[in-house]
Amino acid sequence: MARIDGRTFDSIRDTKITDEYLIHPDGSVLIEMGRTKVICTAFIEDKVPGFLRNTGKGWVTAEYDMLPGSTETRKIRGVKRGKQDGRSQEIQRLIGRSLRSVVDLEGFGERTIWMDCDVIQADGGTRTAAVTGSFIAMIKAFSKLKEKGLIEKIPVNSFVSAVSVGVVDEENLLDLCYEEDKNAKVDMNIVMTDKEEFIEIQGTGEEAPFSMGELMNLLDLGKKGCRDLFKIQKEILGKDISREIMEA
Amino acid sequence: MARIDGRTFDSIRDTKITDEYLIHPDGSVLIEMGRTKVICTAFIEDKVPGFLRNTGKGWVTAEYDMLPGSTETRKIRGVKRGKQDGRSQEIQRLIGRSLRSVVDLEGFGERTIWMDCDVIQADGGTRTAAVTGSFIAMIKAFSKLKEKGLIEKIPVNSFVSAVSVGVVDEENLLDLCYEEDKNAKVDMNIVMTDKEEFIEIQGTGEEAPFSMGELMNLLDLGKKGCRDLFKIQKEILGKDISREIMEA
Amino acid sequence: MARIDGRTFDSIRDTKITDEYLIHPDGSVLIEMGRTKVICTAFIEDKVPGFLRNTGKGWVTAEYDMLPGSTETRKIRGVKRGKQDGRSQEIQRLIGRSLRSVVDLEGFGERTIWMDCDVIQADGGTRTAAVTGSFIAMIKAFSKLKEKGLIEKIPVNSFVSAVSVGVVDEENLLDLCYEEDKNAKVDMNIVMTDKEEFIEIQGTGEEAPFSMGELMNLLDLGKKGCRDLFKIQKEILGKDISREIMEA
Amino acid sequence: MARIDGRTFDSIRDTKITDEYLIHPDGSVLIEMGRTKVICTAFIEDKVPGFLRNTGKGWVTAEYDMLPGSTETRKIRGVKRGKQDGRSQEIQRLIGRSLRSVVDLEGFGERTIWMDCDVIQADGGTRTAAVTGSFIAMIKAFSKLKEKGLIEKIPVNSFVSAVSVGVVDEENLLDLCYEEDKNAKVDMNIVMTDKEEFIEIQGTGEEAPFSMGELMNLLDLGKKGCRDLFKIQKEILGKDISREIMEA
Amino acid sequence: MARIDGRTFDSIRDTKITDEYLIHPDGSVLIEMGRTKVICTAFIEDKVPGFLRNTGKGWVTAEYDMLPGSTETRKIRGVKRGKQDGRSQEIQRLIGRSLRSVVDLEGFGERTIWMDCDVIQADGGTRTAAVTGSFIAMIKAFSKLKEKGLIEKIPVNSFVSAVSVGVVDEENLLDLCYEEDKNAKVDMNIVMTDKEEFIEIQGTGEEAPFSMGELMNLLDLGKKGCRDLFKIQKEILGKDISREIMEA
Amino acid sequence: MARIDGRTFDSIRDTKITDEYLIHPDGSVLIEMGRTKVICTAFIEDKVPGFLRNTGKGWVTAEYDMLPGSTETRKIRGVKRGKQDGRSQEIQRLIGRSLRSVVDLEGFGERTIWMDCDVIQADGGTRTAAVTGSFIAMIKAFSKLKEKGLIEKIPVNSFVSAVSVGVVDEENLLDLCYEEDKNAKVDMNIVMTDKEEFIEIQGTGEEAPFSMGELMNLLDLGKKGCRDLFKIQKEILGKDISREIMEA
Repeated sequence: MARIDGRTFDSIRDTKITDEYLIHPDGSVLIEMGRTKVICTAFIEDKVPGFLRNTGKGWVTAEYDMLPGSTETRKIRGVKRGKQDGRSQEIQRLIGRSLRSVVDLEGFGERTIWMDCDVIQADGGTRTAAVTGSFIAMIKAFSKLKEKGLIEKIPVNSFVSAVSVGVVDEENLLDLCYEEDKNAKVDMNIVMTDKEEFIEIQGTGEEAPFSMGELMNLLDLGKKGCRDLFKIQKEILGKDISREIMEA
Repeated sequence: MARIDGRTFDSIRDTKITDEYLIHPDGSVLIEMGRTKVICTAFIEDKVPGFLRNTGKGWVTAEYDMLPGSTETRKIRGVKRGKQDGRSQEIQRLIGRSLRSVVDLEGFGERTIWMDCDVIQADGGTRTAAVTGSFIAMIKAFSKLKEKGLIEKIPVNSFVSAVSVGVVDEENLLDLCYEEDKNAKVDMNIVMTDKEEFIEIQGTGEEAPFSMGELMNLLDLGKKGCRDLFKIQKEILGKDISREIMEA
Repeated sequence: MARIDGRTFDSIRDTKITDEYLIHPDGSVLIEMGRTKVICTAFIEDKVPGFLRNTGKGWVTAEYDMLPGSTETRKIRGVKRGKQDGRSQEIQRLIGRSLRSVVDLEGFGERTIWMDCDVIQADGGTRTAAVTGSFIAMIKAFSKLKEKGLIEKIPVNSFVSAVSVGVVDEENLLDLCYEEDKNAKVDMNIVMTDKEEFIEIQGTGEEAPFSMGELMNLLDLGKKGCRDLFKIQKEILGKDISREIMEA
Repeated sequence: MARIDGRTFDSIRDTKITDEYLIHPDGSVLIEMGRTKVICTAFIEDKVPGFLRNTGKGWVTAEYDMLPGSTETRKIRGVKRGKQDGRSQEIQRLIGRSLRSVVDLEGFGERTIWMDCDVIQADGGTRTAAVTGSFIAMIKAFSKLKEKGLIEKIPVNSFVSAVSVGVVDEENLLDLCYEEDKNAKVDMNIVMTDKEEFIEIQGTGEEAPFSMGELMNLLDLGKKGCRDLFKIQKEILGKDISREIMEA
Repeated sequence: MARIDGRTFDSIRDTKITDEYLIHPDGSVLIEMGRTKVICTAFIEDKVPGFLRNTGKGWVTAEYDMLPGSTETRKIRGVKRGKQDGRSQEIQRLIGRSLRSVVDLEGFGERTIWMDCDVIQADGGTRTAAVTGSFIAMIKAFSKLKEKGLIEKIPVNSFVSAVSVGVVDEENLLDLCYEEDKNAKVDMNIVMTDKEEFIEIQGTGEEAPFSMGELMNLLDLGKKGCRDLFKIQKEILGKDISREIMEA
Repeated sequence: MARIDGRTFDSIRDTKITDEYLIHPDGSVLIEMGRTKVICTAFIEDKVPGFLRNTGKGWVTAEYDMLPGSTETRKIRGVKRGKQDGRSQEIQRLIGRSLRSVVDLEGFGERTIWMDCDVIQADGGTRTAAVTGSFIAMIKAFSKLKEKGLIEKIPVNSFVSAVSVGVVDEENLLDLCYEEDKNAKVDMNIVMTDKEEFIEIQGTGEEAPFSMGELMNLLDLGKKGCRDLFKIQKEILGKDISREIMEA
């Protein structure tokens, strides 16, 4: 059965990563997956949170938000509601964890990499696009440190990308758009390394629980999607940087 | 290799659910898993959130918090920090989703079931204990509605329990205590139904990614743990209520 | 006239203090007065607030809160309302002041004793139970400092307990339960030392003012109640510690 | 022993109440007790809080704050600290309770009287000055309702005034200024009616507990102070209104 | 003297307005002035704030924010600081006022137009770019209402654009970039209509006051800049809509 | 055409500045312009904000607020609304900027002058009265530093005053009261030095844009108003201090 936008069940949407999207941050990309658009930026700060002071270790942290104009109905700003919504907090914690899992925190001194993922337009899969895009922005920030001679090598040992999978009308689908996501019986976000290992699996039976068989099928689809994304990431980063990460 | 508290790798900790623990809520239990203690309460309110008004549907929502005295180092109250921490929000969203996935929201009128999970003492696995315990408190609240003749049957079609699994020192372990959790390379929370279906899988490679093989082993351990918990839940609820749920 | 629960007008409710109730804090008790249950914990921190730095003095401070499941109607969490309610603030200030009035702040170095009083179940008199219970938790924390050789003696010169009194249907009653408190014309909380001196008197003519005569009668009842509580406190702390405090 | 400002131990400070101090509120006074200056205003709103809707009852509520320039060291605004401080909350609850205790809430329809007490200059005794001053502002607001024919009589059955007493250098003193208050061993605030009944007694042994004898002496001093204040209040309100209240 | 980017003193930067930039809002543009980039969106809501209910009038309101990655040093999110900064509030009030001054609030029913201006990249003049861009987004939202037959004509009687002017190194400059703005002795923002009337003038002698002569020169430069911007706006909106506004 | 209060179009209201209004601050005045009354205070703190530490420079900052009783309808406190309103923030930023523009920040060491402007009664023009009054309070605080020998001269080189002007019923008016302000088509606040230079011009076409001609007329009126205010300021400060500032 053809999908809303004509894709096959195991295709990701057209994905485009624009590097050096902004002038101020140390790394910045615009990632577009279909109509979903997220700006991911990285700033380097020469300081770490209290719990890491004098440990020689650095830190990577992420924040996630959506512009009011990014959603179908205007999204009320967190600052107006007086607090960040739970969903955004959950997502930014996921992004931070995912990036940190492949970073050698002892490899770039007592510095913090501040990642910001701001959704310009939402059409499903914003958190997974944010992971995939912010990986590139983070690598670019590390490259900058390396160019300045402040670190010897990029302290990252794998590529990281993420994709959503789900069960919609009894079909297993890769990279759900919003319309599909809304109707998904099962919804899963998968974050992987290019070594085909899992960093995070978050699966939810939104309306109904799911079986071990369904789980296996979804994980396979997720692997397929991440593989496609790693190709795009490697092209953007170029051969030298890509080889450095892969051989780390 | 024996575990800190002498358990085998596939044993849950001593688990005790005390029903009717408090006098005011419509359902209330104290669940103890080893040294972890959580009070789970349910209040019925004859009102639903705005998005459900006039739909005939009810709602189940959960809140989670830890007492200042529950943790090794005193936990600063959310109200003093000015906001709920991200972890607590994430957990309470998980509890709410898990319970709702087995509830027929059309089966108890325009009512809200307010679940509260307050950790009295934390020693790992507080979120999974909260899911397992609040399932009982919720059923008790529904039973009360039924006794009053306000609903005909308990609008729940499966039991729900949850347990953590993880990889510690290359070993797969069931139901991690805090000491084990701290050292876990992979950490996974599994929420299941008594039909052996998954409601939620949240797996994180805290320090390093994990393979498909590791994932399979952990899922098996999780199933084993939930099975043990279902037995305890069924004993507490008694034959009649248990059968009603299982046959729904 | 017999009271709701059969007590005489000058009886306190069945009171039970469970010591070492939790594993993490430096002192922790569960105090039960009738159906009112409060967890009181004490944590020692090797630091004082700014205004005491480099004075050689320590500090004792208290926080008070109620679990959502502790009250007849679910109590909304402070963190959800965005701020602590005025009543809780007032109560925790009272607890802090009451404890500090018998503590030699110069007797335990630049340390802070963090007291937390969390109401598990409320049936009137939660603030007075919190004072009585937290006194024990505080002494236990000081004992721990003494055992470790960090202080030579417990820096406390009197026992402290508290009780409520009130006028209900023209009768003077000791230790009001919620039902009585709701109907009280006059409501008074009394905090005393075992030397029969007052630490705090807070009397309010809720619905109507009260005369000097009524005041005298209530103060007498309060003394009686505190005397009963001192006995229980001394039993819990044991002879050695009790004598040390009484002879200080 | 003469006091700082030459008063005898049982004298209140020079007290002046300026009526109709502001043009916008329904009642407004500036009360000056020595160097302490508080603006007290009353606004009538034709609406009650939720819990009183459709009960036919009205409500009286109070807020209290201090201007940044009112204190020796600049007082940081509540809005900058993000919340009202505990002391202010405690005081405004006291003011509200004190006024309500003499008001017939059924006597002025479903209206709210909003009292605001803003300290322009603080030199001790701001909370008691606020009670004494806001009583006048409240009566003026009720008079306005009466003049408009919206109520038949002022729904208040007693005068209310308040004063502080304390023990300083072993002496019992009436109406403490800040310098005295700072050094007080015992500090007590007394709110009374002109029928010599107590509305509130709040006594604190700041540094040391106090005996029954000390309490008696302080209560006598407090009575003397309130008597002096009632005279001033009656002069301001004039014979007609005063008689109406006294004969209610 | 040539400017940093080679412009003459009376030139605006390269300005580009991309219409229909996002899919969800009722109007949305990306406005770029040199390196400054702002997304301006408009959402129509069928509801007005309380003070306009049942008046037949509509409302136009604006919010302004900057992405963390938009500034030289990462900008901390308002939601993390717990409140919107004063500068953002001031700017969004300016945008709202500016747009409302040319809108007939009685001409589009009881609806609210929510304008959002989010700065993607900041290089000076973000507030004036936001005014100029959001004017287009607002007109597009009104056009949508007209196309749907909900209003007969666009209820706007003039074009609105805005530009900054300033005195830098004794030279009067039009449309300051950040580098120039930082060094400006006088800084002025001018909002005008295409009838050459002023909507807002906000001039500040940042470091030193300015004379009447300087003011006149700056106002002339501002007029020149706005004229240039009206041309661009009219091109984007097309002849028909432009004529409708100009002839209103 | 005579104005509401009988003034000519180019008259300011009766203006009275009471110096040394409060005992605690380092400078304090009550400024009354017609029925508008604002307390302006200055406190000296021996500390500067982070961005000025170790620069040898001082800082002047201002806060503005209105008492609940100052407005026609009771003004809800910022602390109750959870945040300062946008208008107050805008005004306090204006006051701070205006004062700083004539202060030599290097002339009084690393100190902060905290200005507080609290409106006791509002009848239009509170922000301009706040600027005019706080200038005096600031000078008094500097005089105190000078008297103590901590600075050699008052580090201020001009007088600062402010006034509002506007167009009401086609007439240009000076110093608008609230009733006039409400009906003003154009509303402008002007802050000037006694050298007849502008510090701030904030003009808004509230309902309709304004022409260059109107602007010129309003600026002339504003100059006239400020001139009148400088006379009053100089009288209050006395010859010596006035000469010192004028000759700086």
